[in-house]
Amino acid sequence: MKIGILTSGGDCPGLNAVVRGAVLKGITVHGHEFVGFRDGWRGVVQGDVIDISRTMVRGIAKQGGTILGTSRTNPFDNGGGPEVIEAHLVRLGIDAIIAIGGEGTLAAANRLTDVGLKIVGVPKTVDNDLDATDYTFGFDTAVQIATEAIDRLRTTGESHHRCMVVEVMGRHVGWIALHAGMAAGAHAILIPEQKVSVEQIAQWVTQANARGRAPLVVVAEGFVPEHLESPHSPRGLDTFGRPRLGGIADKLAQELETRTTIETRATTLGYIQRGGVPSAFDRVLATRLGMAAIDAVVEDSWGTMVALRGTEILRVSFEEALGQLKSVPQERYDEAAVLFG
Amino acid sequence: MKIGILTSGGDCPGLNAVVRGAVLKGITVHGHEFVGFRDGWRGVVQGDVIDISRTMVRGIAKQGGTILGTSRTNPFDNGGGPEVIEAHLVRLGIDAIIAIGGEGTLAAANRLTDVGLKIVGVPKTVDNDLDATDYTFGFDTAVQIATEAIDRLRTTGESHHRCMVVEVMGRHVGWIALHAGMAAGAHAILIPEQKVSVEQIAQWVTQANARGRAPLVVVAEGFVPEHLESPHSPRGLDTFGRPRLGGIADKLAQELETRTTIETRATTLGYIQRGGVPSAFDRVLATRLGMAAIDAVVEDSWGTMVALRGTEILRVSFEEALGQLKSVPQERYDEAAVLFG
Amino acid sequence: MKIGILTSGGDCPGLNAVVRGAVLKGITVHGHEFVGFRDGWRGVVQGDVIDISRTMVRGIAKQGGTILGTSRTNPFDNGGGPEVIEAHLVRLGIDAIIAIGGEGTLAAANRLTDVGLKIVGVPKTVDNDLDATDYTFGFDTAVQIATEAIDRLRTTGESHHRCMVVEVMGRHVGWIALHAGMAAGAHAILIPEQKVSVEQIAQWVTQANARGRAPLVVVAEGFVPEHLESPHSPRGLDTFGRPRLGGIADKLAQELETRTTIETRATTLGYIQRGGVPSAFDRVLATRLGMAAIDAVVEDSWGTMVALRGTEILRVSFEEALGQLKSVPQERYDEAAVLFG
Amino acid sequence: MKIGILTSGGDCPGLNAVVRGAVLKGITVHGHEFVGFRDGWRGVVQGDVIDISRTMVRGIAKQGGTILGTSRTNPFDNGGGPEVIEAHLVRLGIDAIIAIGGEGTLAAANRLTDVGLKIVGVPKTVDNDLDATDYTFGFDTAVQIATEAIDRLRTTGESHHRCMVVEVMGRHVGWIALHAGMAAGAHAILIPEQKVSVEQIAQWVTQANARGRAPLVVVAEGFVPEHLESPHSPRGLDTFGRPRLGGIADKLAQELETRTTIETRATTLGYIQRGGVPSAFDRVLATRLGMAAIDAVVEDSWGTMVALRGTEILRVSFEEALGQLKSVPQERYDEAAVLFG
Repeated sequence: MKIGILTSGGDCPGLNAVVRGAVLKGITVHGHEFVGFRDGWRGVVQGDVIDISRTMVRGIAKQGGTILGTSRTNPFDNGGGPEVIEAHLVRLGIDAIIAIGGEGTLAAANRLTDVGLKIVGVPKTVDNDLDATDYTFGFDTAVQIATEAIDRLRTTGESHHRCMVVEVMGRHVGWIALHAGMAAGAHAILIPEQKVSVEQIAQWVTQANARGRAPLVVVAEGFVPEHLESPHSPRGLDTFGRPRLGGIADKLAQELETRTTIETRATTLGYIQRGGVPSAFDRVLATRLGMAAIDAVVEDSWGTMVALRGTEILRVSFEEALGQLKSVPQERYDEAAVLFG
Repeated sequence: MKIGILTSGGDCPGLNAVVRGAVLKGITVHGHEFVGFRDGWRGVVQGDVIDISRTMVRGIAKQGGTILGTSRTNPFDNGGGPEVIEAHLVRLGIDAIIAIGGEGTLAAANRLTDVGLKIVGVPKTVDNDLDATDYTFGFDTAVQIATEAIDRLRTTGESHHRCMVVEVMGRHVGWIALHAGMAAGAHAILIPEQKVSVEQIAQWVTQANARGRAPLVVVAEGFVPEHLESPHSPRGLDTFGRPRLGGIADKLAQELETRTTIETRATTLGYIQRGGVPSAFDRVLATRLGMAAIDAVVEDSWGTMVALRGTEILRVSFEEALGQLKSVPQERYDEAAVLFG
Repeated sequence: MKIGILTSGGDCPGLNAVVRGAVLKGITVHGHEFVGFRDGWRGVVQGDVIDISRTMVRGIAKQGGTILGTSRTNPFDNGGGPEVIEAHLVRLGIDAIIAIGGEGTLAAANRLTDVGLKIVGVPKTVDNDLDATDYTFGFDTAVQIATEAIDRLRTTGESHHRCMVVEVMGRHVGWIALHAGMAAGAHAILIPEQKVSVEQIAQWVTQANARGRAPLVVVAEGFVPEHLESPHSPRGLDTFGRPRLGGIADKLAQELETRTTIETRATTLGYIQRGGVPSAFDRVLATRLGMAAIDAVVEDSWGTMVALRGTEILRVSFEEALGQLKSVPQERYDEAAVLFG
Repeated sequence: MKIGILTSGGDCPGLNAVVRGAVLKGITVHGHEFVGFRDGWRGVVQGDVIDISRTMVRGIAKQGGTILGTSRTNPFDNGGGPEVIEAHLVRLGIDAIIAIGGEGTLAAANRLTDVGLKIVGVPKTVDNDLDATDYTFGFDTAVQIATEAIDRLRTTGESHHRCMVVEVMGRHVGWIALHAGMAAGAHAILIPEQKVSVEQIAQWVTQANARGRAPLVVVAEGFVPEHLESPHSPRGLDTFGRPRLGGIADKLAQELETRTTIETRATTLGYIQRGGVPSAFDRVLATRLGMAAIDAVVEDSWGTMVALRGTEILRVSFEEALGQLKSVPQERYDEAAVLFG
């Protein structure tokens, strides 16, 4: 049996560990052969593949990024579609696809499975916003990097008696902000799911300052303060028409400094959160997901995605996986809010 | 309401985050007062306490160890027992106890609750061997430290074409070895739950070497090879009659070198696995457990322990928590064994 | 003898290690007493001090920031000047001052020494721009943090076939960019000392891309490309009239993307470079400088600054120390340029 | 011109950065060709080489170990000697050798240069014991790893009120112990250069304990306490007759516990100090040394070694480099001793 693997969408720590897990299990236990589609769905649509040998996955579990390359190509655009893909699979002798990607990839995989392609999914989202799995790999690494960076920023804030505003990833959900903020002891955590006014934030900042602390505000990039226009409108698109990472921290820092008169500095962590050596947690999770994907292939579980529940790896259908975004529930936010102010 | 907190047994990354979570929730939400028993049950038995203010828990979530001190004192020995403890609690005006500790602490807390003391438990075991919770705090940090150390050892092994044997914590269960070994790509993982002969290990080492790899063996301290006497018997006790950390790696390295003629080196990670800055994962988990312990106190859930299931914090009775050791199940070992050899 | 210590200007990893070194040597060897001026020269001008005991410096060598607080106050402004300061010193019984700071602090200390105050200086600049010393503490930590961040960014760049532009500290000199860029293998390093055109940078980026690399550009915040207006002019001041950190990376990324058509992303590391746990190198250097400052005090070497030359700690006069900025020499830039393109 | 590179002796963080620096400078600036001798002098003696292309050195500066492999082979033994080597060089068309190694390698290179071989040396010693250079690469990384490990051990010591004894590398000189001990705030630093009695050490431990600290003892592996037989005699050789890493920490911990009655634990850091990702400092130093070795080759400076003095890279003759071991001078030990007790 010959299996094609692809990694799609934004890169994420743990992608290579998934590939390693799948390839080693497939080769060792089942005698599978493997190819990698280059740059995500682009490689599928264009039939652009490389052979993956056992040697090629050597030591890659600790490498960030993806050895297969990635892109944001949609398999139904760019001259793609099921017939074109099918033809490439037949030509290349590929029996099944393991697609590692986020919601877009799983939605596309769902449509392709409906017309008969044999696809198994592995969930990938640094933001941890997929509802069908407890955690996705990459999230733990991102939270760890953000927490270490915030630990560093605190000593600067304390030495200068400043308020520090830190922007972390999270366009639609606030999981990274919630966890890094709790870990680092933030005096305010701001996430897309929760409307909070600048007045309220300024009050938390003032309270922390009054207790002699250097106020720490952790804000998800997708947070929009109540009564303020979206920070994404004026500078939301770059010269190539793509949405821009960042922005809210700068704006918020200015607003807070004006209202509280406490010197305030903004830092946007940006891409450092998604690159580099994955945490041990993510390597283990990703390896297990890769191996479980092979089990799904062997058992003809097409149209399913592997997922973590508690300490177990299960399978859920693409439909179920695509149900809705996993946002931060009210009780988790309230729990963190105990630390505010 | 006045709550006494204690940390008992071996130190563990995250203890201070539990204390912070409990104290901040108790003070902020419920107006509780807090004291800390010094050095675990010793402080309870002797009525030796310090006041814990909000200021005292400032920034401690990222500190390893425990600001309260710890010991291995049993509350029924050393002049202790329920009457003595009760008398101290009355004298000090303490209404309830939050006991952070492992199996010994929970068993003692169970006996004390049976005779009427008001105790809530928080599970603590670096080894992750408590059955009633998915994970315990400290485990993630230990796995991360071990994985980073093993990553370092690999480059030495590869440069010298050596086999590297690494001993990690795990006297009765192999969770740290399993996770660190999977994360680092070990060619053999040896745990107390699995009998493996030295012949089998030597074969894995030889296979890895034949494929051009520097063989990597990760062994839990409590592993005993089949047909070999326990490494703990000859040098198992130190001059004070206490069990010694380490030992199996040295012995195994010699055996493997003799059998395979591959130059082999042993490293025992030891105490570095349990000290220092906790991972973000452990800080979040520990903070949540500390807060949940306050909920249990407020709801008079005496005799229960807070526990992680999936992403939720639940309560389980001490009896349930003490049921049995959580050992590595066969399927998890088989999963890791795909990477062996 | 009673010594007052102050830390002035931007915070810097290692400040606390200087304080520890000075205080432990002074107390242990000479029986000195110590006070800390709060928030740099502000504490001197206002006579605002705290006692420093041996207990207070316990374990602080590994803490970022400064336990004394810092500010950008000038001792000749804000109601200061030699008479006011002298009066405070007499009132507080302070015999000598150890001033830890950058060029501004040393210049002020020089003027104060000229009128008879007893001051010894310890050089502090994250940017490493003081000519009289081989290295200043904090620089090594900043380079290490920047290098680790760039290592992370590379895997993202490689997975997406993007050019990554990273902005590091260095308003007037490019030492951090030079070292982090060499360590991380940058395809272009851009520093204030070297005029380079955008055309040239675009050519290096294109060359690296042609060889299959994800181009990496490391730029010091103070770099100004030839033929481009200063990035600091339009957005150089914030609402409080202070110069803004950052800016060149965003602008450069847009220019490079336009010229090369290679997808390009900017990251500004900002404050994370100057906070948090100091590297071992910086802790040793800072400790030694603190101890050497006590030697200078004991030997009445007023008006001198301690400095590193090779592996030795020497003294140089304030005049010599203030001679000129230590900029990156041409041969060091040429050396790094071997890696470009 | 065709240059052969070898890495010899124990592996060391930065070896690959030297190779990268040399190869990129040679190829880019001078059009050199490169081969690597496999496994140090073994590859020279046997004429066993691999081609080194520009692609092969891609991204290796951040990899620990050596891509060329290493061994402890002596070029005059194992069928070697100048004639055999000369013959291989002629056959392979190799014009010059860059030998990266410690004292043994430089001594061998010296003898080979004397009979006409064209060799340039690059100093390599994790222990930093070469007299002709301020620092050697690898030393900074080792000190950093040791310091981070000791930081972790402290929190365990403090929680349990224990004395922690940590053994670091340093068979003949104590530089790693000196620097890591100063950085981490050790209450005793024990190095081969300084005779100290167990009584004295026990006194320091007792003093620190009396001040409420958890005593921290950092000991170099080659330290021998006064009045105690060498710890290397009973267990100094393993089953293959090689000297064993470690030993003194265990012995010392027992002695100290017996004398002070303070619970004491030993940790031997071992191989983790020499593997893994090099620090930025070491990457920069190693890259510069590699480039400077090419300059030496181009200028026919045979029989010289590149070396760091202050911030400059110079050349010294092999004779000068081999003069004597660089041991820790008395004044540096006295400086650190201010922190003892």
